[in-house]
Amino acid sequence: MTSLFSKIIAGELPSHRVYDDEYFVAFLDINPIQRGHTLVVPRQEIDRFFDCSESVLQASMPVAKRIARAIEQVVPCNRIGVMIAGLDVPHAHVHLVPIQTTGDLSFAQAQPGNSSELAALAIQIQSFL
Amino acid sequence: MTSLFSKIIAGELPSHRVYDDEYFVAFLDINPIQRGHTLVVPRQEIDRFFDCSESVLQASMPVAKRIARAIEQVVPCNRIGVMIAGLDVPHAHVHLVPIQTTGDLSFAQAQPGNSSELAALAIQIQSFL
Repeated sequence: MTSLFSKIIAGELPSHRVYDDEYFVAFLDINPIQRGHTLVVPRQEIDRFFDCSESVLQASMPVAKRIARAIEQVVPCNRIGVMIAGLDVPHAHVHLVPIQTTGDLSFAQAQPGNSSELAALAIQIQSFL
Repeated sequence: MTSLFSKIIAGELPSHRVYDDEYFVAFLDINPIQRGHTLVVPRQEIDRFFDCSESVLQASMPVAKRIARAIEQVVPCNRIGVMIAGLDVPHAHVHLVPIQTTGDLSFAQAQPGNSSELAALAIQIQSFL
């Protein structure tokens, strides 16, 4: 079965995309933990992150860094935190979350985002990529 | 100033070490979120993970995968979650945490571990590396 994220990657479902390359597509989480919360998703549909190919694993953090740098240009924060859990959608993804404190890095804080605000934010982040 | 983790890496402070290589040292967190919670720490003392060298960033997830596979052999779990925050110790580190649910990936759940149990666990995990 095609995952929600594969449909987004294929353009069959809308998203607030900020980045794509050979291996990854990145778009804003629609239920952000913090403003600027972005998902970095391998194009290959694999449930568990550590089952991704060696090439994808090697490329993941350098790509996450590029995107994190762009998010930091738009969203004031102490740094960009990273989480990989993947129990919600069975398609590996890396969460990039602007944080001020360690407590900010918690799925308990996720709230539905406003679609037009997310759209504007994606354009801003994209402009630094 | 030398970080707590640099002292651990240099062997000046004790730790429950499970792995080391050219770039990384891994040891059990003494305040685990879940049993098997492991820190993967670059030898180079850099505060923010995304400021690490490209080589360290590229190697980080393949190394984390190897260690995660070993933890999974010892600690029953749905998968190994990943968190990078780093606001506690100013030396970049990747948290590997065995999780059953997304809620398990939360620093709010950290509790001091029992030293002899951690020592035994480290030996078990190490045996798969």
